[in-house]
Amino acid sequence: MPLIKTPPPHGGKLVERVVKKRDIAEKMIAGCPTYELKPTTLPDGTPIRHVYREIMSVCYGFFSPVEGSMVQNELERVLNERRLLSEWIFPYPILFDISEEDYKALDVKEGDRLLLMLKGQPFATLDIEEVYKIDPVDVATRTFGTPEKNPEVVREPFDDKHPGYVIYKMHNPIILAGKYTIVNEPKFKEPYDRFWFPPSKCREVIKNEKKWRTVIAHQTRNVPHVGHEMLMKCAAYTGDIEPCHGILVNAIIGAKRRGDYPDEAILEGHEAVNKYGYIKPERHMVTFTLWDMRYGNPIESLLHGVIRQNMGCTHHMFGRDHAAVGEYYDMYATQILWSQGIPSFGFEAPPNEVDYGLKIIPQNMAEFWYCPICQEIAYSENCGHTDAKQKFSGSFLRGMVAEGVFPPRVVMRPEVYKQIVKWWKVYNYPFVNRKYLELKNKELEIDLPAMEVPKA
Amino acid sequence: MPLIKTPPPHGGKLVERVVKKRDIAEKMIAGCPTYELKPTTLPDGTPIRHVYREIMSVCYGFFSPVEGSMVQNELERVLNERRLLSEWIFPYPILFDISEEDYKALDVKEGDRLLLMLKGQPFATLDIEEVYKIDPVDVATRTFGTPEKNPEVVREPFDDKHPGYVIYKMHNPIILAGKYTIVNEPKFKEPYDRFWFPPSKCREVIKNEKKWRTVIAHQTRNVPHVGHEMLMKCAAYTGDIEPCHGILVNAIIGAKRRGDYPDEAILEGHEAVNKYGYIKPERHMVTFTLWDMRYGNPIESLLHGVIRQNMGCTHHMFGRDHAAVGEYYDMYATQILWSQGIPSFGFEAPPNEVDYGLKIIPQNMAEFWYCPICQEIAYSENCGHTDAKQKFSGSFLRGMVAEGVFPPRVVMRPEVYKQIVKWWKVYNYPFVNRKYLELKNKELEIDLPAMEVPKA
Repeated sequence: MPLIKTPPPHGGKLVERVVKKRDIAEKMIAGCPTYELKPTTLPDGTPIRHVYREIMSVCYGFFSPVEGSMVQNELERVLNERRLLSEWIFPYPILFDISEEDYKALDVKEGDRLLLMLKGQPFATLDIEEVYKIDPVDVATRTFGTPEKNPEVVREPFDDKHPGYVIYKMHNPIILAGKYTIVNEPKFKEPYDRFWFPPSKCREVIKNEKKWRTVIAHQTRNVPHVGHEMLMKCAAYTGDIEPCHGILVNAIIGAKRRGDYPDEAILEGHEAVNKYGYIKPERHMVTFTLWDMRYGNPIESLLHGVIRQNMGCTHHMFGRDHAAVGEYYDMYATQILWSQGIPSFGFEAPPNEVDYGLKIIPQNMAEFWYCPICQEIAYSENCGHTDAKQKFSGSFLRGMVAEGVFPPRVVMRPEVYKQIVKWWKVYNYPFVNRKYLELKNKELEIDLPAMEVPKA
Repeated sequence: MPLIKTPPPHGGKLVERVVKKRDIAEKMIAGCPTYELKPTTLPDGTPIRHVYREIMSVCYGFFSPVEGSMVQNELERVLNERRLLSEWIFPYPILFDISEEDYKALDVKEGDRLLLMLKGQPFATLDIEEVYKIDPVDVATRTFGTPEKNPEVVREPFDDKHPGYVIYKMHNPIILAGKYTIVNEPKFKEPYDRFWFPPSKCREVIKNEKKWRTVIAHQTRNVPHVGHEMLMKCAAYTGDIEPCHGILVNAIIGAKRRGDYPDEAILEGHEAVNKYGYIKPERHMVTFTLWDMRYGNPIESLLHGVIRQNMGCTHHMFGRDHAAVGEYYDMYATQILWSQGIPSFGFEAPPNEVDYGLKIIPQNMAEFWYCPICQEIAYSENCGHTDAKQKFSGSFLRGMVAEGVFPPRVVMRPEVYKQIVKWWKVYNYPFVNRKYLELKNKELEIDLPAMEVPKA
């Protein structure tokens, strides 16, 4: 059997749209109309998304081959078939949305270059190819599907309790479509800076520094409890003629739900797993991607496939209820997609078996629980002591944390728990709340160097 | 990616050389000269091999496509290139050897049918194609290799401390070559009977009863401690888009070294793993193959590949020091063979990448130890607490057993340990000793129905 090798980036080559030379950047933005980016918010003002994160992920190649905000035909194609106009599969609308008022005030049109400002500094340009209007509720509904149109996996109609649905529903109605280019490279703050591995850098580290031939990706939006650690370790025994050489944790960093852990604790919690020897750093590496999670289960798993293939992973582990919230999707929706396809979403076969599809290999995993008879974190397909099993419950663990109870070692490694406490002290509360979301979306994960906008 | 399917038997089809109809069998053996099978022994009389086991494994197809005792050209080809005359790879000489005295007394020649008797009953026929002489020491040496000729993996010259070398060295010098046919099907005694799954039956159970698409084989000559159980569980996470559906334990049953566990305890110990829910019987199945272990590390791993592919496995796990004893081979010899090949043994590439090779996929595994910090059986590629690690030691465990100490749960499951105790009571000693070897090779694992030899 041929050994598995790093797959090519999705679409053939990595998108890299970051201008590093100041003089070239200045020429590009001279005299451009400007627009200060702001978060998408709920009616009560709670921030739920910041488009800067999408711009970062596009320009650094995480979403390759997507290069910018989608034109209307491409949006339609994504919603109908989950494909770009170039044929490559892609799950989500990526849109630059502004309000009618802002659009009127801006007075831009096709062919214009718009300079996007962030924290008062130039950040990126948008070369406008098309301006069109969307019905955000329609985009939201079609993005996630409906029980009628997607009966294979959609169990309940999406509604305002679903954070991803709300993100699309709260999009502004005017879309400026076109390619993004970062003209003023942001600097990540601590602790984000040491986990920032854009695809080209990540591929280089995997190849030359870590020297991993096979790498399995682990999706996270959580501080890892021992069940997560066990999922990582066990899933990673797949490979070709030996277990995967590396485990790449890729945290989704951005606005998340209240009750989720702060992003800083997520990153440092995962880092503690390798720093304290539970999975050696020679085999384990923590990274992140900027994205305001849409919790789209099978749809989100496609984005995860795109991101992690671009980062150089050969495999991707998928558990039950992957990137899910509530009961909108079948708990196995992601595994159904990756083992047989979901025709109503455009996949007659799994996404790595269709033309212009992905190359990353799924590792579909069942459940883990603590078994007092096996005296270990047991895998549901092995352990026959179902009467004795103790399920891992994220909510139960959060309850313990909220009460200030040090969780038992069998539930969470003490060194991991200490990262929660560290950031609890910083934010005065262990979980994401409105104050954290507001602060986060004001401060963001980055700072921008000062830059003048030359006159035309 | 295409899903992995059950590979074809090695050589294309399963050998099945068992005559089930009494009248046909009687016609076949009418008037044949007879020869009572007896064990190969050390000079002091200790039995170390019984050729009946090889005849069983050949006729029931475990060794497909081998059909009998090898002719001289085939023996040479196996020793030089590890290939049969039909081109298919095969690791070991399979020989029917008799002494000069027996040969003279028998007075048989090419073209004769010899009836092999066992426990006083007709058992199998050997249709003699060729009679030739071997130098047993030469065969023994070339079977296992030498540091000079096989520098990739042979570290020390083989000698009388190596049980496999001694088995070949103690072969009688006259070889009767030709196909075996079982004419009087043996009945397995308890507990062997319920673990007897010859390849055609095993494939049928896997397909229709267990409904496993992917199956990983586990080689054993041991009562499983928790480290073995963890190796099974962890290696089985390999597969294609999900972990292997089944784990097939295949115990090698036959004469083994003093200090090994009795065969009955090995089988019932592994059975306890599934019976008591550590790996559910839906995912775990215990079987055996009759073979007097040669402890040939990479060479033995090829035989394991042949046997388990014939039984319907898609994968085979290989640890360090696979089927090894002493320091004769590099501890990674088997993994070197299955990841890059060993040219001096005829493998410029791994045995599943050469023409007429195997189709089974290796899963090359590193080490497991108990880590008091991880508080689990940890994998050497994960656990960074190397100062704290506690290695699993079979000898240490045997020491505990010999002292009558109930091993801690973290070392051996109590239900598994009870199987050792059960057979300890039967044999008055927990391990293989000379008395056990003598009894075993007198009684064997089978009984033979009474059968008359009709006159010609």
